[in-house]
Amino acid sequence: MLVKKHQNTIDNAVKANHERTFYSQYPEHPKAYGEEAHAKGLQSYQQMLNKPFKQLLQTGETGWTGEEVSPYTQEVLGVTYPSFAIADLVKKAATAGLSWGKTPVNERAAVLTETLERIKDYFFDIANATMHTTGQSFMMSFQASGPHASDRALEAIATGYHELHRYPDHLLWEKPMGKSSIRLEKTFRAIPKGTGVVIGCSTFPVWNTLPGMYADLITGNPVIVKPHPRAILPIAIAVSVIQQVLQENGYDPNLCQLAADSSGNLIAKELCNDPAIRLIDYTGGSAFGNYIESLPGKTVFTEKAGVNSVLLDSVKDLDAVIQNLAFSVSLYSGQMCTAPQNFFIPGQGITTSNGQVSFNEVVQKFKDAILALVSNPKMGAGTLGAVQNESTLIRAREAQQLGGKVILADTPVTNEEFSNARICAPTILEVSSADNNIYEQELFGPVILFIKTKDTQHSIQLAKQMALKHGAITCGAYTTDAAIKELIAEEMNSVFTPVSFNLTGFIWVNQHAAFSDFHVTGGNPAGNASFTNQEFIIKRFVWVGNRELVE
Amino acid sequence: MLVKKHQNTIDNAVKANHERTFYSQYPEHPKAYGEEAHAKGLQSYQQMLNKPFKQLLQTGETGWTGEEVSPYTQEVLGVTYPSFAIADLVKKAATAGLSWGKTPVNERAAVLTETLERIKDYFFDIANATMHTTGQSFMMSFQASGPHASDRALEAIATGYHELHRYPDHLLWEKPMGKSSIRLEKTFRAIPKGTGVVIGCSTFPVWNTLPGMYADLITGNPVIVKPHPRAILPIAIAVSVIQQVLQENGYDPNLCQLAADSSGNLIAKELCNDPAIRLIDYTGGSAFGNYIESLPGKTVFTEKAGVNSVLLDSVKDLDAVIQNLAFSVSLYSGQMCTAPQNFFIPGQGITTSNGQVSFNEVVQKFKDAILALVSNPKMGAGTLGAVQNESTLIRAREAQQLGGKVILADTPVTNEEFSNARICAPTILEVSSADNNIYEQELFGPVILFIKTKDTQHSIQLAKQMALKHGAITCGAYTTDAAIKELIAEEMNSVFTPVSFNLTGFIWVNQHAAFSDFHVTGGNPAGNASFTNQEFIIKRFVWVGNRELVE
Repeated sequence: MLVKKHQNTIDNAVKANHERTFYSQYPEHPKAYGEEAHAKGLQSYQQMLNKPFKQLLQTGETGWTGEEVSPYTQEVLGVTYPSFAIADLVKKAATAGLSWGKTPVNERAAVLTETLERIKDYFFDIANATMHTTGQSFMMSFQASGPHASDRALEAIATGYHELHRYPDHLLWEKPMGKSSIRLEKTFRAIPKGTGVVIGCSTFPVWNTLPGMYADLITGNPVIVKPHPRAILPIAIAVSVIQQVLQENGYDPNLCQLAADSSGNLIAKELCNDPAIRLIDYTGGSAFGNYIESLPGKTVFTEKAGVNSVLLDSVKDLDAVIQNLAFSVSLYSGQMCTAPQNFFIPGQGITTSNGQVSFNEVVQKFKDAILALVSNPKMGAGTLGAVQNESTLIRAREAQQLGGKVILADTPVTNEEFSNARICAPTILEVSSADNNIYEQELFGPVILFIKTKDTQHSIQLAKQMALKHGAITCGAYTTDAAIKELIAEEMNSVFTPVSFNLTGFIWVNQHAAFSDFHVTGGNPAGNASFTNQEFIIKRFVWVGNRELVE
Repeated sequence: MLVKKHQNTIDNAVKANHERTFYSQYPEHPKAYGEEAHAKGLQSYQQMLNKPFKQLLQTGETGWTGEEVSPYTQEVLGVTYPSFAIADLVKKAATAGLSWGKTPVNERAAVLTETLERIKDYFFDIANATMHTTGQSFMMSFQASGPHASDRALEAIATGYHELHRYPDHLLWEKPMGKSSIRLEKTFRAIPKGTGVVIGCSTFPVWNTLPGMYADLITGNPVIVKPHPRAILPIAIAVSVIQQVLQENGYDPNLCQLAADSSGNLIAKELCNDPAIRLIDYTGGSAFGNYIESLPGKTVFTEKAGVNSVLLDSVKDLDAVIQNLAFSVSLYSGQMCTAPQNFFIPGQGITTSNGQVSFNEVVQKFKDAILALVSNPKMGAGTLGAVQNESTLIRAREAQQLGGKVILADTPVTNEEFSNARICAPTILEVSSADNNIYEQELFGPVILFIKTKDTQHSIQLAKQMALKHGAITCGAYTTDAAIKELIAEEMNSVFTPVSFNLTGFIWVNQHAAFSDFHVTGGNPAGNASFTNQEFIIKRFVWVGNRELVE
């Protein structure tokens, strides 16, 4: 029944995935979900506060843990989550995986699509939970943790569905041997690799977690979700809904378990080292990411730190460019992994359709645009959101002591709705190309650097080296010169960095659309995997072929 | 022109690869290549002996090296090969790779298919070279290094061609935004990862090397071929032909370089550790294979040691089964990575359509069949071939001291054509299931073990554990019981081992057909890769997407 219900959705998603034109199963605007959804979601979220989270279908907890703090109110959420022994999680996953691995892929795809349909009913609950754990604005929380995350999950289902149907289940192989022939009946099975762990991050607890979860599940593997201890609620809601749908449809809810931990008792390392864990998805810092990548016998998918560059060469309309970039760097206070940090600008300035604009003038315009945005009472607080944690805030504030010339610092911003919000405008420094000790590092959060270069060739060379050595997830570039455009594409692509050219208006370098944009290429130090290319899926199972003589 | 010439071949290969029915581009019977080919090939081979190998288009050699010895004559071949500095090889590869990586995939596929068409003219030269380096019989040398290897190379080209066409090069993405829309022009590029190294083995110097070479080349990467120092000539001929075809068609012959070394000065480790080397294909022992797999920042494809099992439960015609297995274990003296070693037989014997046959009777029949085969003057020497190296011979002879009951040892065999051939019949031991110190290891070469188990369930359990702990590339199973068949498939597949059921007649567990059988699954310790699944191809390049605003 579910297969029939969702086949069309899956077929459309498979097609979209190949064509890579615009496709979205879940509308990104909150209004599409009805008039009452917003209020109902907020109420539902508020009712979860200061209570144990009891919606999970997991049993046998050894205790309860919870330490989330809202970046908007700086108050504890008071939600606690059950803790489980690792051996218990691993054993239950293995048990659940036995029959799941043999469930036909069409059935797996259907019930997983059903889970997404059901999660849709909780988009507003998840949005509020995301807002008050990550510090994202409500709109970003809604879109990133709701429709955008679910679109990426559906993309993983669709890619899995396609790949698992790549070879015939069953065929007759007939080899001509002169007068007679040899006939073998062959069968091909996609054997799941084993239990997966998905380790979430504090800034995008759903968007970065759902793809790995659904990739594990569609390929027949059970999954254990280990969220960041400061951003559990949004994904706990999703996991609980998945468990309910699985159980209602006769599957073991332990196929998808939540493994919450606390900063005083982190379990990721022990969990990943368990011999039964064969698949690991990770979003977070490079040190732990590199450690996980080095574990023998594990198939690992990482998104780690990177430093994104913008190359400014020549533009048609400088103001439109500056507006676009000011928004890009302010959005969620630079806490997106796709946010630009290093702006490479030639010392002689840039060419515009109204003539040359000097380096200093570009910097001044940039500063003015950011100031105007963050000080705008209607736009500022909503664009900046809140800073997820204190150390990011401290880093941003202390960035003015890094060296170089301080262009912007200590800008007061206010959030009228949440007077206690952990909020901060970007710190802007101007440095020279020789200041690589300053710009050759990820300054996560609201810190941006204007780097004066000899010329665009020099800018490209520095941005390329940055991507090669430190990783990059995005690169923005502005040029009206076709030859320079191709040079930038070629050089940045050679270090496995995608380039967005000449974005203005309502599209930003920070955005990666499901079904069209690969998120992270997997080719440079920013991560070894990509949402959602074939590799993200096919490394989770193994094709095994059996043969039998037909007499 | 080449694109037009070969498009049909490539399209057929892509189709065959998906359908996995029988397909072969290169006939496996020598007679298909004309009356004179055999004699001409032998003459051509003989003319290469005792001379420097000068057919390569590489320059700048630092010396000449060569130490091959024929397992048939036990005399040195006297062929020497140029040695090159690693820095020189790596630099030339990188230079050659620059334009190759930007060559359209259709052109790459066409010129690579042209190289295979040209290699076909050298199948008999390569066959003789294979015979006198590996010890394979002429027929196996011809088939494995000729048509079968080229079929697998074409399979790699076809898989690459398909995967590189997976996404559109160029598309318009249009996101509806109410009254207006955002339009982005998107392009997707498959960026090659970088220079590859393919490390060959002494027993299948072409069959195991061509897939990695062509997989690197079709995905836009230059390749350096590092053969085993005792089996260079067969692949040197192939590399020289590839270089000629590349040069004739305007490509840099250094896209495919030979890097011969000597046992006194092995270069594999230094070569693999060079930072410019990004892809490594390896066939050989597990110790070095595990080392290569552990190298950070490299994409590695390995085929290592494994122990293959046969499970005997019940059969229709025991004699037909025994004939088939006697040939499987004798073929090339057990030096195929697909050859069975451990035969698990229930203590109470096996069921046949003529009633129960006792364990001892099965063993006796097996021994008799092997003795008859190896002593048959028309069949024996041709089936056994010769033993590639002295240490394999010593291991086989000393196997009778391992413990257990010696069923067959020191059987005299003669090769009438080559009186000095390094030849040896299989050593057969009978052991109990408790003798895991004996059977829990790869006894590479002509050594087989009959292991007495409690029952078939016990046999399955032991074979499964062997595959899990020590790796397995194949498993043969004989049963007439549908439930046991499914149990064997399920249990062995769960440790990523394919099963061949009830083979009799002219098809053996040792054989893996291009376009249909995956060779090695990549899921157990016998190797981390598979000829030729998608993973074998797509891990060699990275999809990178660029976007530009369309105003």
